[in-house]
Amino acid sequence: MNSFILHGDICWPADGRLKAMENAYAICVDGISRGVFPVIPEQYAGLPTEEAAGQLIIPGMVDLHVHAPQYSFNGLGMDLELLDWLKAYAFPEEARYRDIGYAEKAYGLFVRDLQASATTRACIFATVHRDATELLMRMLDATGLSTFVGKINMDRDAPEDLREANAYISAFDTFGWLNDINGKLQYTRPILTPRFLPSCSDTLLNELREVLHAYDLPVQSHLSENPGEVELVKRLFPQAAFYGDGYDAYDMFGSAGKTIMAHCIYSVPEEVECLRKNGVFVAHCPASNMNLCSGIAPVRRYLNRGIRVGLGTDVAGGESLSVFRAIANAIQVSKLYWRLADQNCAPLTFDEAFEMATVRGGEFFGKVGSLEEGYEFDAVVIRDESLNSATRRTLHERLERAVYRDATGLITAKYCQGRKVWSV
Amino acid sequence: MNSFILHGDICWPADGRLKAMENAYAICVDGISRGVFPVIPEQYAGLPTEEAAGQLIIPGMVDLHVHAPQYSFNGLGMDLELLDWLKAYAFPEEARYRDIGYAEKAYGLFVRDLQASATTRACIFATVHRDATELLMRMLDATGLSTFVGKINMDRDAPEDLREANAYISAFDTFGWLNDINGKLQYTRPILTPRFLPSCSDTLLNELREVLHAYDLPVQSHLSENPGEVELVKRLFPQAAFYGDGYDAYDMFGSAGKTIMAHCIYSVPEEVECLRKNGVFVAHCPASNMNLCSGIAPVRRYLNRGIRVGLGTDVAGGESLSVFRAIANAIQVSKLYWRLADQNCAPLTFDEAFEMATVRGGEFFGKVGSLEEGYEFDAVVIRDESLNSATRRTLHERLERAVYRDATGLITAKYCQGRKVWSV
Repeated sequence: MNSFILHGDICWPADGRLKAMENAYAICVDGISRGVFPVIPEQYAGLPTEEAAGQLIIPGMVDLHVHAPQYSFNGLGMDLELLDWLKAYAFPEEARYRDIGYAEKAYGLFVRDLQASATTRACIFATVHRDATELLMRMLDATGLSTFVGKINMDRDAPEDLREANAYISAFDTFGWLNDINGKLQYTRPILTPRFLPSCSDTLLNELREVLHAYDLPVQSHLSENPGEVELVKRLFPQAAFYGDGYDAYDMFGSAGKTIMAHCIYSVPEEVECLRKNGVFVAHCPASNMNLCSGIAPVRRYLNRGIRVGLGTDVAGGESLSVFRAIANAIQVSKLYWRLADQNCAPLTFDEAFEMATVRGGEFFGKVGSLEEGYEFDAVVIRDESLNSATRRTLHERLERAVYRDATGLITAKYCQGRKVWSV
Repeated sequence: MNSFILHGDICWPADGRLKAMENAYAICVDGISRGVFPVIPEQYAGLPTEEAAGQLIIPGMVDLHVHAPQYSFNGLGMDLELLDWLKAYAFPEEARYRDIGYAEKAYGLFVRDLQASATTRACIFATVHRDATELLMRMLDATGLSTFVGKINMDRDAPEDLREANAYISAFDTFGWLNDINGKLQYTRPILTPRFLPSCSDTLLNELREVLHAYDLPVQSHLSENPGEVELVKRLFPQAAFYGDGYDAYDMFGSAGKTIMAHCIYSVPEEVECLRKNGVFVAHCPASNMNLCSGIAPVRRYLNRGIRVGLGTDVAGGESLSVFRAIANAIQVSKLYWRLADQNCAPLTFDEAFEMATVRGGEFFGKVGSLEEGYEFDAVVIRDESLNSATRRTLHERLERAVYRDATGLITAKYCQGRKVWSV
């Protein structure tokens, strides 16, 4: 049923602000929004109605950066910095996904919780393992969520039981993975995923460029996250003018297709200019950036420059799968950045951060992240009455509270491209 | 029933570290812990057992700073700085508590949610209103939680419909309040609560000193939270050597009794020394300090100096009543402080922040915050199995995850001084 009317209290971003309409009707025809109305327009009167009177309805959340295999240790091991944390937690855990039985169990929990979250769109890192990655993609596809999933490529600077034997095997496995899934999945698409520059030899990057062009793939990776990592990249890629130049040299920095770079905390001016010029999406991951002692990305500066910025939970660097928390965290760290680092960078407003979690990140997926006419119909229904207080609140206030209080547990229904992908 | 055995997987702070014992027995006799044991000691074999096998058991959380009347707008209006936020949100909302019907409704929601939280001890700001404050205290007392509650004193720098008419009326009402509740409550105690220096005239502070000595009261207030506020105090109290000196001049800075000062972000060296010398408890409120653009308190420095530091949620500057979130936030902002402000201030570890939420804050209430022998028996039972993942985790890891993931919704039972104050 991809054509219907959703009735409730609706809040959505449009034209750079948040619109709000109580007791309203969002119209979905063939998975596309026809807009939000105070009364049902006559031409849609025949559509069935999904009733959510009194409930809060918002667009689905877009998570531009999350590591599925790391969900099994989310909220753990937060007392280390990035490179040490990778060695102590991320790499040993990811190595387990060679065992398909383990992968099935662990990915099952990830998919279950992603389904119940407010997220309708996600760009996901798997592991280097082809079988486990394909399994994850099949499991995600069955949920009806719209995702990009990447088999990781890494042929160096990781434990032997995790890294791929060499660049050619990594590329070969990537071709194999892409062929295996080709035509088999409806909502789950592949994305080229070199882990990050330190994990990739020049030979591997060269091979991946071939894959990129052969399959016309989008790309996701990490960029300028942590001072230690940035130094490591300088040593490993002395020929690169800046970190992102190491990707750009192999067409993996937005020049050949849509690209997401997570973090971008320590991007030098040339890198920032390259992010802008190439239309790269910055996945801002504030929780992870706190937890791994990385710092705070200058998001205000990026927005002012016209750079595309969405949000990522970055589980398990981030402790929560909830993009609601990412919104609140993005605002919070922007205030600390303003206070401690640069008083020219005004804090993010709630509306701005909500846009990053919806339309701004959603652009990676196409026309996604709003309920304006023409957008793919992604919606989340929240029974927020238990959050309400003695005073009647506006719809905008109810939304702000649902986000700050992380109303994940109060979601009653979720739609992606008009498909009902979750309900209680 | 204040004598019993609590059986489960127990984690508690002792001797500067976290102890953990699976399948263990915490013994409570007359509300006091007799310790945690792998098998039931013979002398306690006759006690009834509260069964929580497989569940996580930890000490109750201590919230050193929370505004009960502000709970009605928690998670709202986060786009303003402290002084503007007070005017736009806090003061207008607090003015409503003059209406006892409103107070009953709004405090009812606060008390309900505090009861269901992991908090067993709280130091609470009410409003200036005597009737509403007494109502709140009766409602809290009925829950069995152990709290301090303060009727606020403020005779200036607030809207006319909220501030008290003058210093004498404020003091008179305070005496009236203290007399009204005298001997009527079991678990809810009064605490002297000048809102903050800008709200109090010298005459009022002088009056409050009389009240303080007459009733031998503890004190709670705010200190050095925000640059704008600090400047305001300098203008209003030119005779004070530093912000805290304004309280100290009237014996309200720890010299005459236990005192909590919330925030302490901009404390100058003389103030820090005075906090230490007078044994003042710093209520560190990281969420609020982010939300109101205040900054980050140098907690590492305070701990190194031997200053007492506990945690506060500071609802509604903080968006959540959960001290679990305060623990995670305290660690997160300490990492940003290290990264952005002072690399000599090492980030807080999980164990340190957990101590702040239990034994360190608990000291304000006496021997509180641990399950070691001799401590008052406060415990929270958490059915954390839904948080568990494909890999078996240690008890310490389960605790870290329960905190980072905010397991408030998974609490199945809560005890305060051996009283069962909550169960599902």
